[in-house]
Amino acid sequence: MSVYEKLKALDITLPPMTPPVAAFVPFVRTGNLIFVSGHIAKKEGKAWAGKLGADISVPQAKDAARAVAIDLLGALHEATGDLNKIKRFVKLLIMVNCTEDFTEPHLVANGASEFLIELFGEAGKHARSAVGMQQLPMGSCVEIELIAEVS
Amino acid sequence: MSVYEKLKALDITLPPMTPPVAAFVPFVRTGNLIFVSGHIAKKEGKAWAGKLGADISVPQAKDAARAVAIDLLGALHEATGDLNKIKRFVKLLIMVNCTEDFTEPHLVANGASEFLIELFGEAGKHARSAVGMQQLPMGSCVEIELIAEVS
Amino acid sequence: MSVYEKLKALDITLPPMTPPVAAFVPFVRTGNLIFVSGHIAKKEGKAWAGKLGADISVPQAKDAARAVAIDLLGALHEATGDLNKIKRFVKLLIMVNCTEDFTEPHLVANGASEFLIELFGEAGKHARSAVGMQQLPMGSCVEIELIAEVS
Repeated sequence: MSVYEKLKALDITLPPMTPPVAAFVPFVRTGNLIFVSGHIAKKEGKAWAGKLGADISVPQAKDAARAVAIDLLGALHEATGDLNKIKRFVKLLIMVNCTEDFTEPHLVANGASEFLIELFGEAGKHARSAVGMQQLPMGSCVEIELIAEVS
Repeated sequence: MSVYEKLKALDITLPPMTPPVAAFVPFVRTGNLIFVSGHIAKKEGKAWAGKLGADISVPQAKDAARAVAIDLLGALHEATGDLNKIKRFVKLLIMVNCTEDFTEPHLVANGASEFLIELFGEAGKHARSAVGMQQLPMGSCVEIELIAEVS
Repeated sequence: MSVYEKLKALDITLPPMTPPVAAFVPFVRTGNLIFVSGHIAKKEGKAWAGKLGADISVPQAKDAARAVAIDLLGALHEATGDLNKIKRFVKLLIMVNCTEDFTEPHLVANGASEFLIELFGEAGKHARSAVGMQQLPMGSCVEIELIAEVS
């Protein structure tokens, strides 16, 4: 099954191309690597706000991390023209908005990591860091940036 | 106009080479990529301290982010011998020192992002993440690391 | 002296291979670059917990950062089969768990940076960022990710 068939089977529609932002771009390709800008979690087009340890639960934020992964795939679809060209997800930096005593950013991060492996199998297995942040743009509960390799 | 002519027109002098630090180096080149160490904001040679949401405003910190970008160019000048050799700014990680309720690190980050595009045009358009940090070295209000591609 | 002889002289045993984790992998190689996942500080097999500025000192956390570097070498040994194949340590992101007023993450980071230079000499000299985090997985005092180049 191609990645697009899997997305369809999961009833997931990739987001339309992000409108260009003045000060930066959604991704840059250099050689075989694509660097994708940090994407914040969104819900119904707005920032999915929340701070782990205060006003959002781990299962909720795990869903948010999965939603960010879908948006990242939208950017990678634009970057590659075909997600099946992705040879390997190389590295994710998963940043979780949290209180000073929330020590489980890795559990939130799994929402994105498990989704990529579900969709891409071996190619989806990535290195990563999952860490707790003071804040994120517009109060979003999760932000993720990634590096992918294309063939 | 070359990058150096633009810098001159903006009345910007690149900083002299950073004195070598014992434990790490200002940049490492691998293949066509240059990884530049995180540079903190400085003012008159000292850390430009401040926490967004408490004791420094967004416009002030945007200026600080622009100042960091100038220091990063100083490192890239050392790395390349000629900033015009830069093919593309690939990725910036822009870290903003802030309180727990400051949710606009992206606005601060624009101080660096807009400056690079002003100077380098298309080549200056980069992927980035802009995030809110608990603290930074010497209380600096902004720290930025970057990856650039040379031809 | 090879890296392994230096490790032996320092009485350091590299950790055994990390048991595979479901959601991500300890490292990914792409071209000549190896991206190693963020490793948290551990002591006696458990997270080395602590927050700089509150319940752990700079010298203690510097030791923790050195311990993380040893674990990262364990991952790189698995990735390369031979640490002597490492051409250059490219970039470290050193994240320090701290209070809002702790401004010396760079001093903690030196525990890892100095160790790599001690072991690898010129090849150990890396670009880096050293920053203060709200929290890290399981309350660990330090987390480090890195990029290394192999020949």
